[in-house]
Amino acid sequence: MKLYDFPLAANAQRVHVFMAEKGLDLERVRVNIRQGEQFAEPFCSMNPFHCVPVLELDDGTVIAESMSICRYLEELHPSPSLFGRTPEKRAVIDMWARRMELDAFIPLLHALRNHAPMFAGRVVPGTNSDLPQVPEIVTRGIDMMQVFLTRLEPHLERNAFLAGEDFSVADITGFFTMRLAGAVGMDISKAFPNTARWHADISARPSFKL
Amino acid sequence: MKLYDFPLAANAQRVHVFMAEKGLDLERVRVNIRQGEQFAEPFCSMNPFHCVPVLELDDGTVIAESMSICRYLEELHPSPSLFGRTPEKRAVIDMWARRMELDAFIPLLHALRNHAPMFAGRVVPGTNSDLPQVPEIVTRGIDMMQVFLTRLEPHLERNAFLAGEDFSVADITGFFTMRLAGAVGMDISKAFPNTARWHADISARPSFKL
Repeated sequence: MKLYDFPLAANAQRVHVFMAEKGLDLERVRVNIRQGEQFAEPFCSMNPFHCVPVLELDDGTVIAESMSICRYLEELHPSPSLFGRTPEKRAVIDMWARRMELDAFIPLLHALRNHAPMFAGRVVPGTNSDLPQVPEIVTRGIDMMQVFLTRLEPHLERNAFLAGEDFSVADITGFFTMRLAGAVGMDISKAFPNTARWHADISARPSFKL
Repeated sequence: MKLYDFPLAANAQRVHVFMAEKGLDLERVRVNIRQGEQFAEPFCSMNPFHCVPVLELDDGTVIAESMSICRYLEELHPSPSLFGRTPEKRAVIDMWARRMELDAFIPLLHALRNHAPMFAGRVVPGTNSDLPQVPEIVTRGIDMMQVFLTRLEPHLERNAFLAGEDFSVADITGFFTMRLAGAVGMDISKAFPNTARWHADISARPSFKL
């Protein structure tokens, strides 16, 4: 089993944090995405979506998508559980992971890619294209995060972590969401104190010392 | 166990198709989102994200998010399997479900919400707000779908379904993605014949007769 990744890619880092929480190590193959190796063979055929990370199994099966890799690792190494130990807990964690990802992480990811000069020509993950950076997409990402934070804040007044009393994979996505929010200039600490408390708590975990 | 939903909501329909494929039926509670019932009690407290569907368990646990509901139902009713029977198959299905959702379904969902007059004032799911409909978000959604289709087309030349030889939950999301593409004016049949073949195949399934 080999993990193809690049240490500076945010989605690779989500998997690294997950592995650190699990105490896992894997053989790694570096794909230098700053030098375009994701568009060259052999990686290109392995993942036509041109993104890292990718987990290659010994039988040649390719698992792209950071969260799909984490799910697979959870099945091989159930403890400590980050996706939940019962069907009900798994459902609640999955719900919060999806809310965080679809309502906050992804809108902010697109905001950053349409904002930061380093992403010019790469607004869509895994592409080199002439699609322009669009300021309206930055604004919409920030507006969607505001909506999300308004919903999240009362929840985190009552709960230590996103899915309740236990740290989960949803909090890992949450950490990277907060980093994206900072990267597009949002400061949430004053208006959303419970969210800031949660963010400080998870940031103090050793697994997040990237 | 009760399913709170509205028959015309696309995400409710994803769960309906999933249930039909499984041969499942659940007690349903209608939440009329066209009359704003998602913003009124008791639904408002049950899901502060104001979206349907929501599955309420007998112990009061609330599972929002269509795919989290489907995952939970799969755990209770494993056959026929729509998320995969082995860790490896589950990982590949999850990867394709995520690619379809993050690279196509979600960009097109935002395209439609920023395009169709009926979504004016509701560009962000579960909100009534003064955020405007933004034409650039429509264009970007269509452009992202084009990128996705270019990657998908050779894959569907070699595979019957998204995750290989078996129909899966990824294909359900795929069906609704294709419907969104049509709703924003895309015609994929000529340029992407393998994708059109796959779409015709899944559309013929009885579960999709909504």
